[in-house]
Amino acid sequence: VINISQRAKNFPFSPIRKLMPLAEQAKKKGIKIYHLNIGQPDIQSPKIFLDKLKNYNEKVVAYDRSEGREEFLESFCRYYRKNKISLKTQNMIATYGGSEALFMAFCILFDKDDECLTIEPFYTNYLTIAQSCDVKLKTVTTALENNFQLPPIKEIKKAVGPKTKAVLICNPNNPTGALYPEKVLKELIDFCCQKNIFIISDDAYRDFVYDGKKIISLLSFKKAKDIVVVCDTLSKRYSLCGARLGAIISRNEKVIKSALKIAQSRTSISSILQSAASCLDQVPKNYFSKILKEYQSRRNTLIAGLKKIPGVKFGHPQGAFYLIAELPVKNSEDFCRFLLNDFNYKGETVMLSPAKGFYLTPGLGKNQVRIAYVLNCNDIKKSCLILKKALQKYTINSK
Amino acid sequence: VINISQRAKNFPFSPIRKLMPLAEQAKKKGIKIYHLNIGQPDIQSPKIFLDKLKNYNEKVVAYDRSEGREEFLESFCRYYRKNKISLKTQNMIATYGGSEALFMAFCILFDKDDECLTIEPFYTNYLTIAQSCDVKLKTVTTALENNFQLPPIKEIKKAVGPKTKAVLICNPNNPTGALYPEKVLKELIDFCCQKNIFIISDDAYRDFVYDGKKIISLLSFKKAKDIVVVCDTLSKRYSLCGARLGAIISRNEKVIKSALKIAQSRTSISSILQSAASCLDQVPKNYFSKILKEYQSRRNTLIAGLKKIPGVKFGHPQGAFYLIAELPVKNSEDFCRFLLNDFNYKGETVMLSPAKGFYLTPGLGKNQVRIAYVLNCNDIKKSCLILKKALQKYTINSK
Repeated sequence: VINISQRAKNFPFSPIRKLMPLAEQAKKKGIKIYHLNIGQPDIQSPKIFLDKLKNYNEKVVAYDRSEGREEFLESFCRYYRKNKISLKTQNMIATYGGSEALFMAFCILFDKDDECLTIEPFYTNYLTIAQSCDVKLKTVTTALENNFQLPPIKEIKKAVGPKTKAVLICNPNNPTGALYPEKVLKELIDFCCQKNIFIISDDAYRDFVYDGKKIISLLSFKKAKDIVVVCDTLSKRYSLCGARLGAIISRNEKVIKSALKIAQSRTSISSILQSAASCLDQVPKNYFSKILKEYQSRRNTLIAGLKKIPGVKFGHPQGAFYLIAELPVKNSEDFCRFLLNDFNYKGETVMLSPAKGFYLTPGLGKNQVRIAYVLNCNDIKKSCLILKKALQKYTINSK
Repeated sequence: VINISQRAKNFPFSPIRKLMPLAEQAKKKGIKIYHLNIGQPDIQSPKIFLDKLKNYNEKVVAYDRSEGREEFLESFCRYYRKNKISLKTQNMIATYGGSEALFMAFCILFDKDDECLTIEPFYTNYLTIAQSCDVKLKTVTTALENNFQLPPIKEIKKAVGPKTKAVLICNPNNPTGALYPEKVLKELIDFCCQKNIFIISDDAYRDFVYDGKKIISLLSFKKAKDIVVVCDTLSKRYSLCGARLGAIISRNEKVIKSALKIAQSRTSISSILQSAASCLDQVPKNYFSKILKEYQSRRNTLIAGLKKIPGVKFGHPQGAFYLIAELPVKNSEDFCRFLLNDFNYKGETVMLSPAKGFYLTPGLGKNQVRIAYVLNCNDIKKSCLILKKALQKYTINSK
């Protein structure tokens, strides 16, 4: 028998997507599902993008520049300028969404068997990306009780070894919604500068920060210009998950030169979509303020709803659109399957992501779920009610 | 000083794209360049695709299924059925063009330090992709004198070691235009089946076969169903290089299951472009026959033109749209730079790819170039004349 690689055998299935077949079965039975499992916003994509797409009038859909179309990169620069960060197009390479930017960062910063330190719970795809380039992922753990804030720098110091080439953070955090304050980030920067360790910053949710707080970009720390690599994406910013547009950004010239070589190896990203996206920084400012207001209400609605369910604990997310909740169950994956397979409330159910897949440390997250509050407040209210009813029934069943 | 990985330092620049900055400078000086360096066809993309793109009317550009949109995968199945190959959507995962399919194949079939055997000269991107997952590329060499046909199976046997997990072929071949006959492929299949070695087949050019010859797909060998992994793309088939749409195809379930896990780690490919591409198998049959006729004329025009240049040798390509030519120069990269930097004939010049980058064995290809015959016959005629004039001037200069 012919064998695939050990590497491939070790790849995890996405905890966000692995229950999809069960959801499809439930839908076939006529059950309506509230999708709180995936960070797919229901916000309309900007009209300016859709219009430009309709007006695409090239006759030959040709390759683009490997580094990204000039006007596309310039629109990133203008977006950052509005956010008080000065960048040049030479500081970035266009990517297939944030995921390719992450892949490039891993390829460029690590050799095989090197270590990447990240914060647990983490966006699972980090693990597959690390494994695909033979990088070992290590974690420091954050806790619900502490609102998933970064641990003290001394714990990070303890976790860093001679093989640690970079620390990977996601701010605001997927899956916890934690927002890291400037002081803590500054400590991390100081430590990494001193130790000559890169910081990879997954900034997918940088536009989603609530309660009047501000996002601190690692690009704003001048002293860190050689060690900071930012993975950015338009997926959440402009509700364009299906456009697969992003960028890897760094002021370290060697990093960008290497990213260009990887970019050349896959020719270019889509010329059509870059062309449509180059105008996105013209989206009016109230586009964001409206969305922010909406998400803040959704978060508040979710929190209010969860508070009414006995035995459920959760942190207070200040950014992104996720929340980690601890449920009064032993095995949240089993409960998530139950929600799709064996339960409905008036013909409706909810889909959640079991949180175990967001942890590396065995045993952690087993009774937790990630909830993506990407639906309107009314649907979130209904989802909380369904969740409450489901927990009641599940608890009785398991007795 | 902080250091990037050794892996990244070793990445090559694309020989096809590395001279682009020189081309941009030449254009700024007002010089017209005939781009024979890159496989970017000038053929119009199908109207059916562009129309569907204009009619895209989703309000939210959402993620798609990681494995690919059902209707997109079905259109692949229909295309293959027309070509007498029966596949199910479960045999494939949609990818960002052929390059991601290749990357997935490398990730799935090889562990670090395993070896992939390919045929030299080869599409350079194989090297970057192999390096990004720490796979060693080994080669058996094919020669211009032999029209770049596969070497006898005994030479392949000799090159296969205990670490060789797969043989990678490209048929018809980029960069040589060689088409492999059924008998030779059957021998290769028999050998790999016996040895339990995968075959990765880069089928990017499967629709471009001339002189009334037929392409033999490795998917048509029943006995090889577990060992064959095909990397397919719409880039050349439908002149959609900038759409970045392709698929990894295999009847080996473990391969496809692993590909799905990698696919999940980058969420999905573009929903917009999959939607527009799902109708492409409805392209009328004469779309291909017209294109084939055109390319065959271009190839004949190129050969006729090259024959008039003293000291130029080349094979007789039977597929794809490339030709490897040996020039009467010592260093073809230096000559390619000369073409862009120091030469023009009546305000025009040509851009070629130095062939050294398509070889792994040091010293090979140094006096060769890859010529992509992707322009109309008139432009190819002009390009040959320019090449002739340039070689005259270059030879005088170097004396």
